[in-house]
Amino acid sequence: MNDSGVELLAADLSTDRLHAALRDPALASMNFLNEVASRFPEAISLAAGRPSEDFFDVDDLPRYLQVFCDYLAAERGADAALVRRTLFQYGRTKGIIHELLARNLACDEGIDVDPESIVVTVGCQEAMFLVLRALRTDERDVVLTVSPGYVGLAGAARLVDMPLWPVRENEDGVDLDHLVEQIEAVHAAGQRPRAFYLVPDFANPSGASLDLEARQRLLAIAAEHDLLILEDNPYGLFQAEDGQRLPTLKALDTSRRVIYLGSLAKTCFPGARVGFAVADQRVAGADGGSTLFADELSKIKSMLTVNTSPLAQAIAGGKLLEHDCSLLKANTREIQLYSRNMRLLLEGMDRRFPRGENHQVSWNTPGGGFFAVVTVPFIADDTALEYGASKYGVLWTPMSHFYDGRGGENQLRLSVSAVSPDEMEAGLDRLAMLIADLSDKEVSTQ
Amino acid sequence: MNDSGVELLAADLSTDRLHAALRDPALASMNFLNEVASRFPEAISLAAGRPSEDFFDVDDLPRYLQVFCDYLAAERGADAALVRRTLFQYGRTKGIIHELLARNLACDEGIDVDPESIVVTVGCQEAMFLVLRALRTDERDVVLTVSPGYVGLAGAARLVDMPLWPVRENEDGVDLDHLVEQIEAVHAAGQRPRAFYLVPDFANPSGASLDLEARQRLLAIAAEHDLLILEDNPYGLFQAEDGQRLPTLKALDTSRRVIYLGSLAKTCFPGARVGFAVADQRVAGADGGSTLFADELSKIKSMLTVNTSPLAQAIAGGKLLEHDCSLLKANTREIQLYSRNMRLLLEGMDRRFPRGENHQVSWNTPGGGFFAVVTVPFIADDTALEYGASKYGVLWTPMSHFYDGRGGENQLRLSVSAVSPDEMEAGLDRLAMLIADLSDKEVSTQ
Repeated sequence: MNDSGVELLAADLSTDRLHAALRDPALASMNFLNEVASRFPEAISLAAGRPSEDFFDVDDLPRYLQVFCDYLAAERGADAALVRRTLFQYGRTKGIIHELLARNLACDEGIDVDPESIVVTVGCQEAMFLVLRALRTDERDVVLTVSPGYVGLAGAARLVDMPLWPVRENEDGVDLDHLVEQIEAVHAAGQRPRAFYLVPDFANPSGASLDLEARQRLLAIAAEHDLLILEDNPYGLFQAEDGQRLPTLKALDTSRRVIYLGSLAKTCFPGARVGFAVADQRVAGADGGSTLFADELSKIKSMLTVNTSPLAQAIAGGKLLEHDCSLLKANTREIQLYSRNMRLLLEGMDRRFPRGENHQVSWNTPGGGFFAVVTVPFIADDTALEYGASKYGVLWTPMSHFYDGRGGENQLRLSVSAVSPDEMEAGLDRLAMLIADLSDKEVSTQ
Repeated sequence: MNDSGVELLAADLSTDRLHAALRDPALASMNFLNEVASRFPEAISLAAGRPSEDFFDVDDLPRYLQVFCDYLAAERGADAALVRRTLFQYGRTKGIIHELLARNLACDEGIDVDPESIVVTVGCQEAMFLVLRALRTDERDVVLTVSPGYVGLAGAARLVDMPLWPVRENEDGVDLDHLVEQIEAVHAAGQRPRAFYLVPDFANPSGASLDLEARQRLLAIAAEHDLLILEDNPYGLFQAEDGQRLPTLKALDTSRRVIYLGSLAKTCFPGARVGFAVADQRVAGADGGSTLFADELSKIKSMLTVNTSPLAQAIAGGKLLEHDCSLLKANTREIQLYSRNMRLLLEGMDRRFPRGENHQVSWNTPGGGFFAVVTVPFIADDTALEYGASKYGVLWTPMSHFYDGRGGENQLRLSVSAVSPDEMEAGLDRLAMLIADLSDKEVSTQ
């Protein structure tokens, strides 16, 4: 991609004349991770956070389309011309599967929302952008975010020039005392804390979850400090089979304090690029009336992507309809697979690094989701990653990539979502060899 | 949408604490147009700029998907697992139909580009946003745009807080002397003109086109003043059958001066939400190397929508493949339909407002595309629109909506794309009655 042998013309550009987001080190680091993965295609990847491909089937697609067309005819009273128009033509900016998503939220999450408060988006990433673009009025508006955190939120914030203030994670998911400290620090700096972003269930990258008490305390803090909560929930469905799902923040929210960011990437398929925001807040206008925040987000969407492909929505909608709008039902096999893989990871680490031995290796025990974090007695950076890929054929992700600044230097993220049991075992063997290798070196240099 | 009877809670918001784009009058005016159209569903619409629905067929969709899968297997060497991954999984940010789009540009437009310089986007709207987001580094960067102009460009500019400087249209499409004046005025104001946006072929809203000489002069001006050209070409294929297509600016560009913004909304279908940018400029980095501008746009896309639905791309790709990547071939029937409708419009206006009579009604004669502009001896504003919808059952678009500020008060835009011949005749009858009615009132109040 970078070529120094090309002659430049007068019309060409330079990075210092382009938006600062393009000079963000986070971008370079994501590129580096992809580049390492592509250089070692034979390596076992415990790095990839993508969903399992075991159950994708091209033959499903025409059927999903047909199921959605049948729904338009049977439940929405559409004639053939209206079905065609709905799929092929420009359409409703807020989307065409909002009723189905509202049913899904009711049956899987106990969230009861007016479908009009849902904006269907091009993946959850667009939903994050819409919300931050709406909330960022000038340089005083900032967003608080859990750290380590999802790089997509940081990217959306960069695009609207909105500062991120980190809030530490701890063993309870989020350090809520630090949240309060940071809110007060933002005010002290003359800035406005507009929202706090987090993934309460099986976070990316840490795998951490908030317990019920922490959820309730977080809602109370948000009310006390007049802060919106941006709840991102891509993994909540993937509770390990021996555990109990907790209510989402939005299900506990009785005062429109939470904007819920939904993703179908892991529960339908990434290729639909369908996500959504639930934004049931009212927005008071200058005229004394009020609108739904969802309608304000929709206005921004009309200037950004116009609408989310109705063809892609129809395919996702067909999958929802085939399972009575329950993604829990639709993901029975996936939940088993991820739950099994997480168990294999945790048991596999136990066997390779038995408790009581002096290996200085520890890890958390997520109750579900895609990710776990391992702490090691050496610097787990890009150099270590490349060394492990080259010498042992195993890929993982340095946790430092998920910090905006310092943090996570001795930690690595492992993903369970895209490997077979055999690959998990072999991957952990290789990882154990790498850890032994680098731990020895660390000891020898001390 | 606006409800003054709703009790507000502490978590609710107010428009003055949201981004200024949401208070843009252009948004309110687009909402008004949609609202009038929905209040008068029986009215004949000469307002809608959407493509004809006559040739949409739901049965095409599974076949397009299959054709694209066959292409992946036969031409790209994909096995079944890779085909599944390509359709369902996260994928290449720049898109998966770039090779097909490059073939299309070669065969239909005589544009020869490296597929790597193409970024597939969520409609052309996202392409506009990506380019303006990249070019807008601080408050000094401005974009010049033809006026009257496409509201989507103005919307994207609002989202990145980038000022628009209007450049007048004239009977030759664009007043190039005014362009030079405006470039100089931007510099004099201490700002930087980064790019000039226009639709050289059958512009929305005016229907105007640049002749070959104007295209060449525009390229020379851009080179002289070091300005990028953003060429938006959604209608270029729809040259009326008695005319000759002209080369696009990108086809004439020998020095990477033009960023070409492509849309498949009118040539495939809006529901795919597939557009693209051709950005073959080099970007010099701090390290002495250079990247493609397309790769910089791709980085922004990774923070905005991650990628364009590969399912939607596959459907559009299948349609391209079925016609040897020629959208001219794919649109034989559509070109005939739009060409016939434009002829009916122009002939119909001639019959109703004969030359030499003192009706003070005139109109331009676009060589193709969707739109024509009628000048009338009264104020053709929202009030006139609503009056015509209510009393005569005809819809059109006040041209004033397409000006950023004053302009077009005596003009209306007519669209030929979404009506049958009978509707065109009836619509023109109704419009003629409205014009007679309001012209009389205008005369009587003088």
